[in-house]
Amino acid sequence: MNYPTTIKNLIECYKKLPGIGEKTAERLALATLNMDDEIINIYTKSLKDIKTKIKRCSICNNLSEQDICPICKDKTRDSSIICVVEEPKNVFLFEKVGTYQGKYHVLDGLISPLEGINPEDIKIDLLLERIKKENIKEVIIAVKPSIEGQTTGLYISKKLEGLDVIVSKIASGIPIGADIDYIDALTLEMALEDRTTIS
Amino acid sequence: MNYPTTIKNLIECYKKLPGIGEKTAERLALATLNMDDEIINIYTKSLKDIKTKIKRCSICNNLSEQDICPICKDKTRDSSIICVVEEPKNVFLFEKVGTYQGKYHVLDGLISPLEGINPEDIKIDLLLERIKKENIKEVIIAVKPSIEGQTTGLYISKKLEGLDVIVSKIASGIPIGADIDYIDALTLEMALEDRTTIS
Repeated sequence: MNYPTTIKNLIECYKKLPGIGEKTAERLALATLNMDDEIINIYTKSLKDIKTKIKRCSICNNLSEQDICPICKDKTRDSSIICVVEEPKNVFLFEKVGTYQGKYHVLDGLISPLEGINPEDIKIDLLLERIKKENIKEVIIAVKPSIEGQTTGLYISKKLEGLDVIVSKIASGIPIGADIDYIDALTLEMALEDRTTIS
Repeated sequence: MNYPTTIKNLIECYKKLPGIGEKTAERLALATLNMDDEIINIYTKSLKDIKTKIKRCSICNNLSEQDICPICKDKTRDSSIICVVEEPKNVFLFEKVGTYQGKYHVLDGLISPLEGINPEDIKIDLLLERIKKENIKEVIIAVKPSIEGQTTGLYISKKLEGLDVIVSKIASGIPIGADIDYIDALTLEMALEDRTTIS
């Protein structure tokens, strides 16, 4: 005797999500059973829609329900500057900060020779085309400061050599509020290197 | 600018699940986006079915897709013994162990005067009726050894006074594999009290 089929299926689906094991999946499935009908309806509809309604913006490759995403459509934003990020969720992170008023470009990965991810496997060509076509003045590489991130940034800047485009990267350094005692040597090195003048 | 509506809705639904905060819900929703179509179909169907197909067994109150659950229907199981548990998931836990061959009864909670849960709020009446109607020889109280669990056990045994029914409870003691040094005093006290003769 085991759980009824419907619950068993739901447990199996939850187990496919990242970080969800057998026990947690069981707990989530039983909690789902106690959800309000209204929530269940929204939940079911969202799942049904997620594969059909969500596509990629044809300009910046971000998640969007339209062919062109609201950010690319927005005429009030500075279209001469592109912030290059690894994944769609990074766009929403930067948007939460709220200070950036330019456009974005989602790479869908980083160059990683070790994992066999080459420049042509991510959306770099789309970015380069876009930079040449649109009147772009600055490209900000806003990816994580790992080997893969740095390789990707260098590759893009190399490809843009000779063009009248500034390529910058977001600063590496000590997070606000962090204790300097607990920061690793590499971060400190980067923080020193990326120092700015205060007077 | 935020996530497209479909993703936003899915994040909100995930946030309703226990132990899932904003960040995790976001991660789960984006992972759902990458699920295979086949899994999404099963996932959607399970969600749609969970409110309509899953009911409670009219005998033991366990989760079931039929009016009477497979365990209550099973003629090969010992129907003279009932294992009383707090929640449906406990039934599946005992079934995973596999040694228990009697029937079950799901209380759907424990008596807790502090939280305002009285005997009539949980399925004790259904249990008492059942014990009187069926030819029950033993009732095993298999709830957690908390104040609420002990109160519930005592209440049931009191209600069965005078009837020819043995009321027992599962043993409290040191978990197999645990180090005796790290066991709390109350558990040790219970382990002493519940000691059994070995020769």
